[in-house]
Amino acid sequence: MTNEKKFVKSITSQNEDFAQWYTDIVKEAKLCDYSSVKGCLNYLPNGYAIWENIQNNLDKRFKETGVKNVYLPVIIPETLLQKEKDHIEGFAPEVAWVTQGGGENLEERYCIRPTSETLFCDHWQKVVKSYRDLPLIWNQWNSVFRWEKTTRPFLRSREFLWQEGHTLHATESEAKERTKTMFNIYRDFVEKDLAIPLICGKKTESEKFAGAEATYTIEAMMRDGKALQSGTSHYFGNSFPDAFGIKYLDKNNTQHSAYETSWGMSTRIIGAIIMVHGDDSGLVLPPKIAPTQVRVIPIAQHKDGVLYKANELVEIIKANGIRVDIDSSDKTPGYKFSEQEMLGIPIRIELGPRDIENAQAIIVRRDNNEKIIVKLDEINDKLTKILEDIQLNMYNKAKEFLDSHIFEANNMEEMINISNAKKGFIKAYWCGDSNCEDEIKNKTSGYGSRCIDENPIEKNCKCINCGKDAKHKIYWGKSY
Amino acid sequence: MTNEKKFVKSITSQNEDFAQWYTDIVKEAKLCDYSSVKGCLNYLPNGYAIWENIQNNLDKRFKETGVKNVYLPVIIPETLLQKEKDHIEGFAPEVAWVTQGGGENLEERYCIRPTSETLFCDHWQKVVKSYRDLPLIWNQWNSVFRWEKTTRPFLRSREFLWQEGHTLHATESEAKERTKTMFNIYRDFVEKDLAIPLICGKKTESEKFAGAEATYTIEAMMRDGKALQSGTSHYFGNSFPDAFGIKYLDKNNTQHSAYETSWGMSTRIIGAIIMVHGDDSGLVLPPKIAPTQVRVIPIAQHKDGVLYKANELVEIIKANGIRVDIDSSDKTPGYKFSEQEMLGIPIRIELGPRDIENAQAIIVRRDNNEKIIVKLDEINDKLTKILEDIQLNMYNKAKEFLDSHIFEANNMEEMINISNAKKGFIKAYWCGDSNCEDEIKNKTSGYGSRCIDENPIEKNCKCINCGKDAKHKIYWGKSY
Repeated sequence: MTNEKKFVKSITSQNEDFAQWYTDIVKEAKLCDYSSVKGCLNYLPNGYAIWENIQNNLDKRFKETGVKNVYLPVIIPETLLQKEKDHIEGFAPEVAWVTQGGGENLEERYCIRPTSETLFCDHWQKVVKSYRDLPLIWNQWNSVFRWEKTTRPFLRSREFLWQEGHTLHATESEAKERTKTMFNIYRDFVEKDLAIPLICGKKTESEKFAGAEATYTIEAMMRDGKALQSGTSHYFGNSFPDAFGIKYLDKNNTQHSAYETSWGMSTRIIGAIIMVHGDDSGLVLPPKIAPTQVRVIPIAQHKDGVLYKANELVEIIKANGIRVDIDSSDKTPGYKFSEQEMLGIPIRIELGPRDIENAQAIIVRRDNNEKIIVKLDEINDKLTKILEDIQLNMYNKAKEFLDSHIFEANNMEEMINISNAKKGFIKAYWCGDSNCEDEIKNKTSGYGSRCIDENPIEKNCKCINCGKDAKHKIYWGKSY
Repeated sequence: MTNEKKFVKSITSQNEDFAQWYTDIVKEAKLCDYSSVKGCLNYLPNGYAIWENIQNNLDKRFKETGVKNVYLPVIIPETLLQKEKDHIEGFAPEVAWVTQGGGENLEERYCIRPTSETLFCDHWQKVVKSYRDLPLIWNQWNSVFRWEKTTRPFLRSREFLWQEGHTLHATESEAKERTKTMFNIYRDFVEKDLAIPLICGKKTESEKFAGAEATYTIEAMMRDGKALQSGTSHYFGNSFPDAFGIKYLDKNNTQHSAYETSWGMSTRIIGAIIMVHGDDSGLVLPPKIAPTQVRVIPIAQHKDGVLYKANELVEIIKANGIRVDIDSSDKTPGYKFSEQEMLGIPIRIELGPRDIENAQAIIVRRDNNEKIIVKLDEINDKLTKILEDIQLNMYNKAKEFLDSHIFEANNMEEMINISNAKKGFIKAYWCGDSNCEDEIKNKTSGYGSRCIDENPIEKNCKCINCGKDAKHKIYWGKSY
């Protein structure tokens, strides 16, 4: 028991230092750590298992809408990356270049992919001939690389894991529909499976993806009031297909431009799970993606029959399709409790000699610490219901926090006052000019536009910065 | 119907030109193609879906033995790669080097990982302190990069997909057992799920992995008689852990060296599936990993009720948990048949007006072309049985081929004669000297040692090359 006091000692409270609290959780729950490769992460078993569940749930949703998975190369020749002007401007400064291979200096540099639009378009240019070849609804689960200067676990690192979907269509309307379909899948997945409420909408011109015509985003609010961009879906129109010369023949043998989309969600979302649900005891995982949903902790396990009964209970619960494990190590129950809490396992079951005598067990909920005594022969029904209830409760709690941290500002003075006094998002009108966007950000020390409110605005509303007619209501916020 | 004759025209027969036949299948079944990134592949939907099923089936087996998935960085600093002497000698000539990042020349080069032993050991050196931290049974699904000069789809490319498992143990016996466990998982998976019979055993000193103490291999025989190394499991002993300074304290506070293993299977195995089961009509996929197990092809689909009934049938089969689709495009049935055959879909169901009248359908097996008339109300039971039978029949057919293409040579003359006259493997005695190994390979124009026969040899057997006492019986063969 050399590690006995480790957990209790080292976690900072959220109120004391939110950033340190975050770092402590990532470390103590062993989700990931910094590798010797500067700026890169090791995704450790506890963190990667969360990502695997995210992948499974999201991939299933993708495939139900006809998405097919592929895998394209990890490196991109410089000439290919340069084919779309805005794109290269956006990414060139932050790529890593391969200049030597097989013992020789290369004639052309290759970058480690920062994203793969150019590779998909290059392939499509070769294979797409007719309307019969469309649509192409492809996705890959991979890692990308961007030479970041400052890094934080899950939130920003040189290499990160994600999925990038890329699709090609014969018509504008079909491509626009696909952009929205994927936007809605992200939204539904994050709200239902991750229990994270969202603000959703279109990005402004200056915040959209390099080369895109429109970017749709889902934005979550962390417990410190900051925004975390949690998934984006882009409509490209013809920009990439035209730059790459992708054309198709329609039924009348007429040549047409094709329309493109791309969409992605990354391991950043694990950062959102931590910062939306976590508390001062550690991680709190939504049951739907928790690698372990229930942990059985035997009490006085040296006593006759306790371990036997606890293992039996595990088998009964496992047979019901619940992800369950047991901690029968030689640590004390108190240590085991704090470890289960740190890991965010939604339910623990305490089972001791007296419980066994009474044919019962004690269920403890991670989300609200509630203790529930349950008869052993009803355990599976109860667990199913409680897991559902935890999922719902976690969403409601986060929704209440989100709603109570969105403020309205009717003029610049109000905006500045709120930004100084409160944490959260501010809704305010904006004229559509990127200069005003920049000025609002500067005057509020960092409240950038997160997304455009989806509801149409009324007439005669004015931009809070310049006083001209407003085009949109914007959600402003500080961001990760 | 512009593509009508494409399939029929372009596939070379196996006997005419096996290598071209292979290339044709990969292309016509759209499994993968060469990317504009030299030496790298695009894994296309049909090929990647096979890999996804391999991943799912294999990952499940891994996890049942306690394997946990992780993800470590895509690049490795040069100093880290150099820590184990044999390892750097094995890989340094064939890596790609990153020398620039974020707009600057780097002080130290990074290679794109050719394999990740060094990254795992580097992490473990930091976190492993006591016996309580062991064992670590980790795996990652990723891609690796080796600067190959000549490439072939799935068989050899600069980047390829694989899983690499890495484990660390307190004792030699536990590590050796893990090496064997993974070796047996590969063997069982390839034989049961891929219907590929195997020759299995230890590699000779000169054929083992760079830095390993022992390498175990599973070797499959392609239809041209060549061997394809299909999975390897390595026992490292203390070599890497000592080079990286990984030590642990036992219960008595005494410091010990740790023991390591690694094991991997790659997308090469898709090449084995093609070359073990494929025929002159295209791919033949084992039902257990076929992305589509059954394809329904309506006959005279313009006639009243045919499409309706065909779609109804698809739903009935889907509800039974079988992976089924329908081809209701405007191609001719003949074209659809040849396409289904090219893709290797194990079963097609033909359903036309007369079949519907008789409440029946025609099942056609891909493995032996057998046509079976089935009553519609018995279709699910029949399909389940036929899929099982196809799986078994494919294994038996391949096993018969393997067994009838293994020859015994009692002396060098016999060995040379067989190598000239036959295709397949040759079993022959060997003294254990790597010079003899090289000479045998040279004299037979390419029969290298595939693996050591697992059965112990009798006394007084002599090496077929030097005549000295034999240590092992070896399976010799040409290889991919």
